[in-house]
Amino acid sequence: MSQVCIATYRSYDDKADFHKKALSIAVGLTVGSWTELPEAQKAEMEKHLGKVLSVDVHEGGPGERYADIRIAYPDINFSRDIPALLVTVFGKLSMDGRIKLLDLDVSESFAAAHPGPKFGLQGVRELVGVHDRPLLMSIFKSVVGHDLPNLREQFYKQALGGVDLIKDDEILFENPLTPLEKRVETCMEAARKAQEETGQKLLYAVNLTGPTSQLAANARKAIAAGANAILFNVLAYGYDALHELSSDPDIHVPIAAHPALAGAFYPSPHYGIGASLLLGKLMRLAGADLVLFPSPYGSVVMPKEENLAVKDALLQPLHGLRTSFPVPSAGIHPGLVPLILKDFGTDVVVNAGGGIHGHPMGTAAGGHAFRQAIGAALNGTPLKEAAEAPGNEALQAAIQAWGVKEA
Amino acid sequence: MSQVCIATYRSYDDKADFHKKALSIAVGLTVGSWTELPEAQKAEMEKHLGKVLSVDVHEGGPGERYADIRIAYPDINFSRDIPALLVTVFGKLSMDGRIKLLDLDVSESFAAAHPGPKFGLQGVRELVGVHDRPLLMSIFKSVVGHDLPNLREQFYKQALGGVDLIKDDEILFENPLTPLEKRVETCMEAARKAQEETGQKLLYAVNLTGPTSQLAANARKAIAAGANAILFNVLAYGYDALHELSSDPDIHVPIAAHPALAGAFYPSPHYGIGASLLLGKLMRLAGADLVLFPSPYGSVVMPKEENLAVKDALLQPLHGLRTSFPVPSAGIHPGLVPLILKDFGTDVVVNAGGGIHGHPMGTAAGGHAFRQAIGAALNGTPLKEAAEAPGNEALQAAIQAWGVKEA
Repeated sequence: MSQVCIATYRSYDDKADFHKKALSIAVGLTVGSWTELPEAQKAEMEKHLGKVLSVDVHEGGPGERYADIRIAYPDINFSRDIPALLVTVFGKLSMDGRIKLLDLDVSESFAAAHPGPKFGLQGVRELVGVHDRPLLMSIFKSVVGHDLPNLREQFYKQALGGVDLIKDDEILFENPLTPLEKRVETCMEAARKAQEETGQKLLYAVNLTGPTSQLAANARKAIAAGANAILFNVLAYGYDALHELSSDPDIHVPIAAHPALAGAFYPSPHYGIGASLLLGKLMRLAGADLVLFPSPYGSVVMPKEENLAVKDALLQPLHGLRTSFPVPSAGIHPGLVPLILKDFGTDVVVNAGGGIHGHPMGTAAGGHAFRQAIGAALNGTPLKEAAEAPGNEALQAAIQAWGVKEA
Repeated sequence: MSQVCIATYRSYDDKADFHKKALSIAVGLTVGSWTELPEAQKAEMEKHLGKVLSVDVHEGGPGERYADIRIAYPDINFSRDIPALLVTVFGKLSMDGRIKLLDLDVSESFAAAHPGPKFGLQGVRELVGVHDRPLLMSIFKSVVGHDLPNLREQFYKQALGGVDLIKDDEILFENPLTPLEKRVETCMEAARKAQEETGQKLLYAVNLTGPTSQLAANARKAIAAGANAILFNVLAYGYDALHELSSDPDIHVPIAAHPALAGAFYPSPHYGIGASLLLGKLMRLAGADLVLFPSPYGSVVMPKEENLAVKDALLQPLHGLRTSFPVPSAGIHPGLVPLILKDFGTDVVVNAGGGIHGHPMGTAAGGHAFRQAIGAALNGTPLKEAAEAPGNEALQAAIQAWGVKEA
């Protein structure tokens, strides 16, 4: 059983001796000093010493020379929590020139302290009773300043479109117009009413906010009021807050991690934390059942390669943890569905806001258009052809409005 | 009384219409849509609508064109906590191209929910009984893998040097060799013993770690064991965790904020959060009594302009909050003291590790050399001259080892 966590960094420097730099990191972030230690003490300290596993130098012109450096940190040096791991491998180091943390391979024993997603991808599928297609999530059009009857109306129209999940806006906080418990009661009532029409089970991810120490209590309040899912701005509170929520037996609903603030970390090539670690592996380790991240299709962009790396981190084997549902978000309309399925496969949540509410025939038709597009894409039917079929008028109208990007 | 929080961004784009972009931010992150709203609804929604205060475009060549954009966000839209504020002003926006959050001016009412530092700069001065000079802090040489007798020995030698504060290494977590309460007892005993020799009162900032929900309990345990200060890796847990600790009446000791992970946010010109906001204003608002940040002198560098902006954010008037002690860290030796005082004034903590432990005459002499350098700098005596005075052999040796950088 491995007893080390391995960090992969990319370090840019036009003239550094990267092997020397790697060694100074491995020593500096663990035992502090090594060569000057007496031999007797070395024997004792060896188990605490970081080890350089590899240094892969890429020569290049000014500003382009870098090395990928892998260092193993003994588990014995830090407690089994993500704050301790991140502070160890990238606390001080993050401030030491142009260096980015690309990946972390945690040990079996570190992972064992992290149960990961309580439901995971399959658990979410079971809750909504959908096993054979991508799920469909929709987002409120606007929430700030709106009251409960308005939210109920928005919710109901979205639900009528046959969506599987509806999420709060991440900027909806505790407020007098739509307080947490009232909001949950109101929306869940609309969900039940819509389900009578559509037969479709639906999760409502209510935005969990408030003081750090009150998050668990607020989650329990929301659940007591009927909430069957939670949305959480993980990076505003730290991964450990998510880990504690997801490990709490009383919080027996899926948690969707929102990527708010993620752009402060991942986009620079020189600084920060790589997207697949930030929004992929660490979110899953901390217990996110669904993870939203920027899609490669909209205005909030992330290079497709990084998108797919996030997806892979959520879906590939990881110490036996459940997988997390990838939710690429922003700029999604029905004409993109074949491409989404090509890029992400069927284990994906198609998530749309404007692509639902902006439908020429209205919000419910927006949902229908997506469901029709998903059905066609799964059958391998080109959307333009599917749109001609009787009953697929919603898809037809969506295509006229936004076009099609066949895969 | 202002009812808005104002965010300042720097947005890079070679051809964007920045005025249009600013408007879309102000609307998109508040009411969602505006121009299409019926007039009656506009009247009702007006109080929720973000407002563009200024757009200052700097034309420049490819990659160099940017605008500084200031937007006012109505307080009514978010709860009075830093996670809600950050998610509102930079949650989704952080992922929208090359944009950096430079500053936040919070409203009186937002600030009123944040008592800020419980002790602040003056309170820390009172605790150590030093009002007329910069304080001196020292850092353990190495802690990982060491046992209690070793830590006691390291602590005692540092304390003998006349330092005012000793801090744990930020990578020292709960561990069997030096568990929290034992560590506090051991080090505080060494502190008392040293005080009998030196007469100098001393704060020991023990590293507060563990699960988020246990931080307050761990702090109380440390205090019950005798801890008279706390070190906290704020960015690993979020600002609200610090705010809750600093607001807790049972945690009646100063809190030193460590900048671990800060380099993932501030160094890129295009992404992230500006240093003076990240390590200055938000740390103070959240209640840090002392704030460590990279010095302009060492290997962990930050441009001096940014350093001084952090210092200013900690010291300038801010809604009546107490000031936080600036602790520029890394690469500090006694020969830099006149420069530190020139750059930071006397309300600064001189913080050293290698510059104390690496002293040719030993750790205690390392502290003496700093105290001698501080005394000379305050008197306006050049260090080389002061080093000649009888009793100042420690300073003499330090200057021979590391040189002098006169201000």
